[in-house]
Amino acid sequence: MIVRPPTAADRGAVLEALDSCGAFSAFEVEVAIGMFNEGLAGDYTLLGVEVGGALRGYACIGHASLTERSWYLYWICVHPAFQGRGVGQALQAAVEDFVRRNGGDKLVLETSARAQYGRSRHFYETAGFAVQGRIVGFYKRDEDCIVYCKALADLE
Amino acid sequence: MIVRPPTAADRGAVLEALDSCGAFSAFEVEVAIGMFNEGLAGDYTLLGVEVGGALRGYACIGHASLTERSWYLYWICVHPAFQGRGVGQALQAAVEDFVRRNGGDKLVLETSARAQYGRSRHFYETAGFAVQGRIVGFYKRDEDCIVYCKALADLE
Repeated sequence: MIVRPPTAADRGAVLEALDSCGAFSAFEVEVAIGMFNEGLAGDYTLLGVEVGGALRGYACIGHASLTERSWYLYWICVHPAFQGRGVGQALQAAVEDFVRRNGGDKLVLETSARAQYGRSRHFYETAGFAVQGRIVGFYKRDEDCIVYCKALADLE
Repeated sequence: MIVRPPTAADRGAVLEALDSCGAFSAFEVEVAIGMFNEGLAGDYTLLGVEVGGALRGYACIGHASLTERSWYLYWICVHPAFQGRGVGQALQAAVEDFVRRNGGDKLVLETSARAQYGRSRHFYETAGFAVQGRIVGFYKRDEDCIVYCKALADLE
């Protein structure tokens, strides 16, 4: 398992991971790929995990403007065939390491309360994220937004 | 009192309102003016209120991507010499009208829990916003973020 920054050559693998993981609608995949492209252009930070010669997971993060030390975790996705092998944990550790080394001390993410995201929410909660808010009817009339946050330990 | 879209000619008046209202740091004013410029370029929606021949208040809003009908209220500011005269209410009414006419049914905003924002939070709460979350230490170690939301009434 190799943690490395994704490149334009990984776009196909990222699209496959997003498409096949079952959590995202076609529109969400489109938005995620748009942000992946913006990440390649330097607007966001991208981190990836390669297994068996191909990128199987990636995360897209960015400093939250107006904050001193908070970062958003915009997207994190692992190809379903490679879930349950520690790829997500490696990615999450790489994200936290990057954020701390860049002066951050907090990760914030927004996710849907819908059923398909149950596995994602379980991942976040296991990774140490705690619910900080719930915006009722945010995504759709019957689909709330959950705001998660994780305070990062200081660098040794 | 005239409600109208701001133009590039209003940039000075907007800067004066942001600078003098006392709620925003120099960096926040810089971010707000940056978003005003992006609003003029079409990336956000800007609404303004003119009193006595000059723009005395403005709001910057935008559709929340990934949502069906939620909009962010990014900035709303009234020149302090023109507060308490209904400018803020006129602006808020214009924002809600615009959002509903464009298919929105929800306004979300994030604001600081710090003391200087007390008047702003009072304004939001009077306008019908309710607290949906609090991200501890979001802006700074000792400065939380409050997430407010207002469900908009259906168009008649």
